Amino acid sequence: MITEHKSHFRVRYQETDAQGHVHHANYFTYFEMGRTELMRANGFRYRDMELTGLNLVIAEAKCEYLTGAQYEDDLMLVTRVSRVKGAAIEHEYEVWRDDELLVRGYTRLGCVDNDGKVKRMPSWLGGKGEYPDLPPISKDDIE
Amino acid sequence: MITEHKSHFRVRYQETDAQGHVHHANYFTYFEMGRTELMRANGFRYRDMELTGLNLVIAEAKCEYLTGAQYEDDLMLVTRVSRVKGAAIEHEYEVWRDDELLVRGYTRLGCVDNDGKVKRMPSWLGGKGEYPDLPPISKDDIE
Amino acid sequence: MITEHKSHFRVRYQETDAQGHVHHANYFTYFEMGRTELMRANGFRYRDMELTGLNLVIAEAKCEYLTGAQYEDDLMLVTRVSRVKGAAIEHEYEVWRDDELLVRGYTRLGCVDNDGKVKRMPSWLGGKGEYPDLPPISKDDIE
Amino acid sequence: MITEHKSHFRVRYQETDAQGHVHHANYFTYFEMGRTELMRANGFRYRDMELTGLNLVIAEAKCEYLTGAQYEDDLMLVTRVSRVKGAAIEHEYEVWRDDELLVRGYTRLGCVDNDGKVKRMPSWLGGKGEYPDLPPISKDDIE
Repeated sequence: MITEHKSHFRVRYQETDAQGHVHHANYFTYFEMGRTELMRANGFRYRDMELTGLNLVIAEAKCEYLTGAQYEDDLMLVTRVSRVKGAAIEHEYEVWRDDELLVRGYTRLGCVDNDGKVKRMPSWLGGKGEYPDLPPISKDDIE
Repeated sequence: MITEHKSHFRVRYQETDAQGHVHHANYFTYFEMGRTELMRANGFRYRDMELTGLNLVIAEAKCEYLTGAQYEDDLMLVTRVSRVKGAAIEHEYEVWRDDELLVRGYTRLGCVDNDGKVKRMPSWLGGKGEYPDLPPISKDDIE
Repeated sequence: MITEHKSHFRVRYQETDAQGHVHHANYFTYFEMGRTELMRANGFRYRDMELTGLNLVIAEAKCEYLTGAQYEDDLMLVTRVSRVKGAAIEHEYEVWRDDELLVRGYTRLGCVDNDGKVKRMPSWLGGKGEYPDLPPISKDDIE
Repeated sequence: MITEHKSHFRVRYQETDAQGHVHHANYFTYFEMGRTELMRANGFRYRDMELTGLNLVIAEAKCEYLTGAQYEDDLMLVTRVSRVKGAAIEHEYEVWRDDELLVRGYTRLGCVDNDGKVKRMPSWLGGKGEYPDLPPISKDDIE
């Protein structure tokens, strides 16, 4: 299982605020995008996971801000699984602009079914829960 | 049926962009808030409407921008039903800062059931569709 | 100085996501709104602070999610100053739906001038920095 | 001058709403992204334009919604300059999912200086205004 992924993206104008930088709440949206891309790098879609009746729900999120990003900056997001235990998965994130680290983040997500009942994290996310396989995605669709 | 409503709200920092004004896409979010409040002024919740299996989906949206709003501006939004016909409802909007008109908007929404099938607009929205009544909301909950 | 403030607001449709709840990033926008309202409760505007050349920039943000909020929920946000030291101010937040605590948050902000130079937190924010007074706002404008 | 550009992007979870589709306001953010990419395809950055003291401000925006996009959909955005006249530039947009047209959009932007004074649209945007050249961007930076 791939546990670290690098995504590249460009800051949108809408993501900035009147201070001229990316509004701090948007980094959590970037982190979520990183989790999606990390799953795809492992060959499946979070969308398909939801269709099976398993959902990831956020339990905790943190971000430390070192310096601001601006409109049209080309950023690199590193998404890394740091721990999978029971029903929980933890990720760490870094957002870089070239050699400069802009923010460091962390999230903890829980796995629940459609009734909100806690479920073991699936094996395809590095956990011990055994569930039917998700449909694989083609190589072409990963990036 | 009340067909015009005035809402008051304050611009959030997150809604601004690097030009220092409210990002233009956010006005459509304001308009949606205005529709919610207009429904509540008529004594029911859009949320309860969705629970009955009827949904409003956007078909068209327009906005004309005259001047920009800034962080912490106190704005007044006028929401007005301009036409109800068949499965469609049209609204017009104005956003004012004191005596100054900032934007003028328009939306057209369609009524569909959970399968996406087009339905007559309910009578409680001014249309000719007859459906079970929505649960009324208390006077206290309107504002 | 007032160090705790309660704001009331209603969840907007745009703030929800496909899981049917308020997207987790939006709580940071709510927290920011709480800081603005707490300042106003103390008789000044953050907007006027920025005009004097002093800015608050985010250094750290955290949120713990206990349960989800939905569209049209009426929420109460508690914003509390927990610490002011040097150039930093820390806030704690709680979001409640009636008697139910939904999330708990924390932020640390730094005070900088327009060149990004670190400045002592102003006395009107509870710090030891002495700066010219901000223009007062009228009682009517507080809420 | 290139007057039409195709961008590819993937829907983020945060962009969806409780109806399970991309919230309609987000298409205006996509359109803005398309304008940025079209400018880059012509070898310059909107960011650099703002540094010269020229800004594009929105005057009108429209969108017609045919069908909804979902989380993780891979979309293609077509951005096309439809008219440049005086201080105004008009664009048309289409968002496609494979062979299916999801939305059609339109915007009109005006060119103003930092004092808000109306200025002729620059020649590098297809207008008749003559201004100093923007710094070119390298081929590598375009995509």
